Amino acid sequence: MADGADNPMSPTRIHHINFVVNDLEEAMPRFERSLGVNPFEVIEHRPRGARVARTRIGQSWLVLVCPYDPVSVPGRHLAKHGEGFFLLSLGYDDIVKQLEKLESSGVQVTDREPRDGILDWRIADIGDVHGAFIQLTQEETPEGSDQ
Amino acid sequence: MADGADNPMSPTRIHHINFVVNDLEEAMPRFERSLGVNPFEVIEHRPRGARVARTRIGQSWLVLVCPYDPVSVPGRHLAKHGEGFFLLSLGYDDIVKQLEKLESSGVQVTDREPRDGILDWRIADIGDVHGAFIQLTQEETPEGSDQ
Repeated sequence: MADGADNPMSPTRIHHINFVVNDLEEAMPRFERSLGVNPFEVIEHRPRGARVARTRIGQSWLVLVCPYDPVSVPGRHLAKHGEGFFLLSLGYDDIVKQLEKLESSGVQVTDREPRDGILDWRIADIGDVHGAFIQLTQEETPEGSDQ
Repeated sequence: MADGADNPMSPTRIHHINFVVNDLEEAMPRFERSLGVNPFEVIEHRPRGARVARTRIGQSWLVLVCPYDPVSVPGRHLAKHGEGFFLLSLGYDDIVKQLEKLESSGVQVTDREPRDGILDWRIADIGDVHGAFIQLTQEETPEGSDQ
């Protein structure tokens, strides 16, 4: 699965996909039943003004984001667009190098430096690409481990 | 990575994520540059009234859908919502069994039987789950292979 081996800028995996929801306690069992995913783990994510729940699917995480702060980024997204897709985050071995490469090739990014996500995730937002909000993630845990 | 081993209903991976776009020739290089993904492969998908392009990210595919038929499902989605997220499709070893399990546990699904997707993909739509359109995919190529 070294698909990206020929391109040092390639992401290694879909790291996570985020959906914004109104009610975490209602959404988690609905996703678990409809998709057959394992039980979600709930995490407080104060910097984003949201409660977050994640469950693993292969190499990736499915993440539900439930804002309690209406002026947070996910809170404003929920108010404007309603429930549904929030962002796609791709996994890279080194997001600092990745940001440098993007910048040197003229790609405009929202976050020029990584910031903290949940747990040990380091993230940086690329921004809107044809209507899809895209983010980079680097996780300290080795890729593909079962954590 | 047998995360789903304890739950026979678990998806094995994010199989693909679809974004709908207005112009494939404009979107492909933009996604390639901004994300560092490998070049897209273009596929005609007549049953969906769209041209489709895919590129691999780890175990998953990133798929761009560009409708040429405005009354097709993706064409109507594009007209209503604009460019962006269209659907998330999860990979299962056996989607017929998966559909039976969902039905027996009372989950309402859009497609009660699989239909043909692009290439050797067999797909079935679950439908809208908290604002996110979710689909099941079974691919004939063994999981995790480089095809």
